[in-house]
Amino acid sequence: MDRRMDTESLPDGWVQDHATDEEIARDRSVWEPFTQSLRELVDLTIRSEADLETVRAAHAQLLAINERLGARVIPGTYGVRLGESSGRNWGNAIMGVRNAIAPPLDIATDGVGRAWVDFTLGAAYEGPPSLVHGGVTALVLDHVFGAAAGADRKPRLTGTLTMRYLRGTKLGVPLRAEAHVDRVEGWKSFVVGHLADDEGTTVEADGVFILPRWARPA
Amino acid sequence: MDRRMDTESLPDGWVQDHATDEEIARDRSVWEPFTQSLRELVDLTIRSEADLETVRAAHAQLLAINERLGARVIPGTYGVRLGESSGRNWGNAIMGVRNAIAPPLDIATDGVGRAWVDFTLGAAYEGPPSLVHGGVTALVLDHVFGAAAGADRKPRLTGTLTMRYLRGTKLGVPLRAEAHVDRVEGWKSFVVGHLADDEGTTVEADGVFILPRWARPA
Repeated sequence: MDRRMDTESLPDGWVQDHATDEEIARDRSVWEPFTQSLRELVDLTIRSEADLETVRAAHAQLLAINERLGARVIPGTYGVRLGESSGRNWGNAIMGVRNAIAPPLDIATDGVGRAWVDFTLGAAYEGPPSLVHGGVTALVLDHVFGAAAGADRKPRLTGTLTMRYLRGTKLGVPLRAEAHVDRVEGWKSFVVGHLADDEGTTVEADGVFILPRWARPA
Repeated sequence: MDRRMDTESLPDGWVQDHATDEEIARDRSVWEPFTQSLRELVDLTIRSEADLETVRAAHAQLLAINERLGARVIPGTYGVRLGESSGRNWGNAIMGVRNAIAPPLDIATDGVGRAWVDFTLGAAYEGPPSLVHGGVTALVLDHVFGAAAGADRKPRLTGTLTMRYLRGTKLGVPLRAEAHVDRVEGWKSFVVGHLADDEGTTVEADGVFILPRWARPA
C-alpha cells in the first residue's frame, strides 16, 4: 500500500488505491482469518473464567500484538477503497472484513428492492440478559434496509427508521432479517421489513432511505 | 468464580454469584485494561498497514491468547451478575466493561428522567466513509433513551424507537447524546432526544419505553 493514492475527485473517505483483484484476494486471505480470530477473542474476553494471573499474562501478549500492528497505520478511518475493479469497505461496522465488531453480515439482494440475511449473534451483542441488545437489532435492520433500498446498486442513506419491538430477540439461535422497498417517490425509497428468531418475528421496522445528492443524475 | 451460583428465583440470564465489592474491584482492575487494549487492537486491525508476514505472525500470537482465555468459559452469555451489593452487566454491547464492541459509554442520569453522555467513536464504528454508521447511532440512542426512561432506577425495555437522520455524524470528534422523558402513561415512558457532533444535531429521535412485566408492582 505504498503507492500514491488518488483522492482528488472522490468524496471524503473514498480512496482510489489501484489494488488489483489479486492483491485484494491476497490481503483478504490474511486479514479475514485474523479478524475472525479477533472476534473469538472479543467473545472469550466476555466469557472466559481464566484466573486473573492468566489474564495479566494474556494482556502482555496482547500489547505485543498491538505494538506490531500499530507500527504503521493509516490516519483516520478505512473508508471505501476503490481498486482496479472493485471497492472495499473493510472497516464497516456491520459488514467489514477487517472489523471485529461486525458479525459480519453477508447480505443477499435480488438486484431490485429486496434484501435478506441469515446470521447468529453471540455474547458480544447482549443487551437485556440473554437477549440481543435492542440497539444492535436496529444496527442490523438499518443496514439490511439500506441494502434493500440500494439493491439496484445505487447507494442510499438512512432518512428515517422506526422500530417496533414485539419481544426480545434471542442470542445464540439462527436469526433472519428481511427488507423490501414498498414504494419509491423521487429520491426516497420507503422500506419495510423485520427481524425474526427461531420463534418468529421479534422486531418490525419501516424507514425512508435517500439517494445521496452526489449519486443523483446531473 | 468457582462458588455455586444461585439462579433459581431470578429471570433468565440473571445470576447471583455473591461476589463482594472487593472481589469485583479486583476483577475489574484486570479485565478493564485488558478490554481497553483489545479495543485498541480492534481499531488497529482496521487501520494497520503492517505487511502480511507481520499480520501472520500476529495471528499466531492471537491464537495463543485465545487458547489461554478459552480454556475455561461460561456457557451462554455474561448476563447480569448480582454480587453482594451491586450488579454487573460487563458483557453489554454498549456499556460492558469486558465487551470490546462497547465504546464503552459512561451515561449520566439525573435520577428522574434525563440521561446524557459525551463520547467519541473511532474507525470501528464507520458506516458511510468517514461517518458513524447510522445503525451505530441507533444503538447509542437506544441505550441512552433506555437510561433516561430508567433514570428512576427501574428497568425499561424499548417498545418503539424512531430516528430522523438530519445529516451524517462525524467519526473522531466529540459527540453528545441526550434524552429525556417527555411524559409517562401507565407502564409507558415517552422519550425524546438527539445525537450531536461538533457542528450540531445530526439525529433526532423519539421512542416509547416499557416497564417489563417482571418489574411491575404485584
